[in-house]
Amino acid sequence: MYMPLYYEDPVTDYWRLINDVTLWDVACQRQVEITGTDAARFVQLLTPRNLSTCKVGQCKYVLITNKNGGIINDPVLLRLGENHFWLSLADSDVLLWAQGVALNSGMNVNIAEPDVSPIQVQGPKSMLVMAALFGDWINELRYFWLKEIDLRGMPLVVSRTGWSGELGYEIYLRDGRYGDLLWEAVMEAGKPYNIGLGAPSQIRRMEAGLLSYGSDMTSNENPFEIGFEKYVDLEQEGDFIGKDSLRRIKAKGIKRRLVGLEIDGPPLKEGNEHPWTVFHDGRPTGKLSSCVYSPRLNKNISIAIVASKNSRDGTGLGVETTEGKRRATVVSFPFYDPEKHIPVS
Amino acid sequence: MYMPLYYEDPVTDYWRLINDVTLWDVACQRQVEITGTDAARFVQLLTPRNLSTCKVGQCKYVLITNKNGGIINDPVLLRLGENHFWLSLADSDVLLWAQGVALNSGMNVNIAEPDVSPIQVQGPKSMLVMAALFGDWINELRYFWLKEIDLRGMPLVVSRTGWSGELGYEIYLRDGRYGDLLWEAVMEAGKPYNIGLGAPSQIRRMEAGLLSYGSDMTSNENPFEIGFEKYVDLEQEGDFIGKDSLRRIKAKGIKRRLVGLEIDGPPLKEGNEHPWTVFHDGRPTGKLSSCVYSPRLNKNISIAIVASKNSRDGTGLGVETTEGKRRATVVSFPFYDPEKHIPVS
Repeated sequence: MYMPLYYEDPVTDYWRLINDVTLWDVACQRQVEITGTDAARFVQLLTPRNLSTCKVGQCKYVLITNKNGGIINDPVLLRLGENHFWLSLADSDVLLWAQGVALNSGMNVNIAEPDVSPIQVQGPKSMLVMAALFGDWINELRYFWLKEIDLRGMPLVVSRTGWSGELGYEIYLRDGRYGDLLWEAVMEAGKPYNIGLGAPSQIRRMEAGLLSYGSDMTSNENPFEIGFEKYVDLEQEGDFIGKDSLRRIKAKGIKRRLVGLEIDGPPLKEGNEHPWTVFHDGRPTGKLSSCVYSPRLNKNISIAIVASKNSRDGTGLGVETTEGKRRATVVSFPFYDPEKHIPVS
Repeated sequence: MYMPLYYEDPVTDYWRLINDVTLWDVACQRQVEITGTDAARFVQLLTPRNLSTCKVGQCKYVLITNKNGGIINDPVLLRLGENHFWLSLADSDVLLWAQGVALNSGMNVNIAEPDVSPIQVQGPKSMLVMAALFGDWINELRYFWLKEIDLRGMPLVVSRTGWSGELGYEIYLRDGRYGDLLWEAVMEAGKPYNIGLGAPSQIRRMEAGLLSYGSDMTSNENPFEIGFEKYVDLEQEGDFIGKDSLRRIKAKGIKRRLVGLEIDGPPLKEGNEHPWTVFHDGRPTGKLSSCVYSPRLNKNISIAIVASKNSRDGTGLGVETTEGKRRATVVSFPFYDPEKHIPVS
């Protein structure tokens, strides 16, 4: 499935996202639906995050790990019922993984891909748009909580989540036939707030330190390497896939670490399509996975995984970009003022 | 991963494929490598085809089924060693499926994606090109057998397989760094034989009755519905995923069946992007999954799944095409003279 990446241009879309509000077509964000009497136990098996406090109506950002502790996906988990979950996927396929795991698990679960097409309404004015569309209860919807609701006959799940680092919402349409109707309804409600078409913003998400699956993390990375220890509970009673490996990895210590890198010189015209090699003292020390020029920070910001010994803030490194070799510095991450940064729940 | 679909145009490429020889970049055809002391037993678990006669050095076309008997993929299996297999995939992801299945299987297997990039050399003159490149042993390589070999330092697996319905070979390059070198070597060896760039030909594969995963079959179809009972052995001693479901399905009988359809009227300008509805007596009876105009047969040929009761040769049906409603007739399948058709091994 394809996804629009920008409408006017990435920078215009970005300013609208941080000043007003934008509507994104993220229907490619597929859902893995898990039901059955053992659904809760099975979902816990899939992730190192301790879900014992996850209530019905709540969402959690989770990592899905394989038996080596490598990351398969980093979806948002939505708990629609005691034994009714969605994994709202990042850019890899978890449906077959989960079905394969279930096969010999001895658990009573049903795993399928429902007819769900999400859109995102993101930006500081998103709450106003959403309240105009749905009513005042929107103002009470807490960060990383959801509500099931019908709008003009359209079956929806609304959650206060998103991938922008700004205030924002996702609307999960549960019947693809209403796609146009929902889209037009949001655009109509957003008119007074200067709503515009948008898409996941590489600039804004990097400022916020949101990681992109397939680039900043893959199955070759484990949660410790990318700084996501907070989403791993090795002390929980129950088992999860990768627990033994992650225990060993933690005991041994990691040899490489994800960092923020500022790259010297004029604005890079294009980001990296493939990883760029990062150097320390002329020798390769890691790879840069994402890179963009932030007009607000007036800096080339990037995400890289480098040898732990070269990962301290202030370390001087080199990057082989497609526009030549550049000097770079390890900086604190995320890049944008953390006071204004909305943490991932 | 992307794949080139044609070079000059689909019809010019087609004539070159059936008259001469074409070289295809099918690096997107990824390999799932299965090793470990239980590899053979595990591979049998993945497919309903009885693999007890599959020798080292042999290839088998197999269906991968889920627990409901639905088809997840239809790869070519390559047996490189007693406990060393590749699944050369069609268009879906089997790596995570196989890793998930392995998790609780209690079997000692390792499942990974190796650095393998296949190309295909297809067409009646392919044997001449391959012999020029590799030597006379090519003439002895049997249909659906393979050989591991080095060519000018490039580590390769050569198999007499392919997705054209013509005589053809696949060359699996086991080190991506040599991609250009291998490509140029084949083009050089093919010069005297009028070799040209090509790609999987929708026309030729449909003439031959080769099915395309994701279109003609998905996880919603089982082997019986698509006429692939010959790749299911319910009597074999060992277990495989979907065995119970397929037993039930067989006992109950199938309600729909894959057929070849000839569509009346002038050549269709474009194939179907999405399934087209098929009608009987004005009522929907199924869906058309692939459609193309064959210049050699001078007919619009298509593959559809329709209600069993409307699936007999000669049955008159209707199809809602993007160029209007057309009359269609169920015909024997594959479309092209079976005497010249190379059966799938």
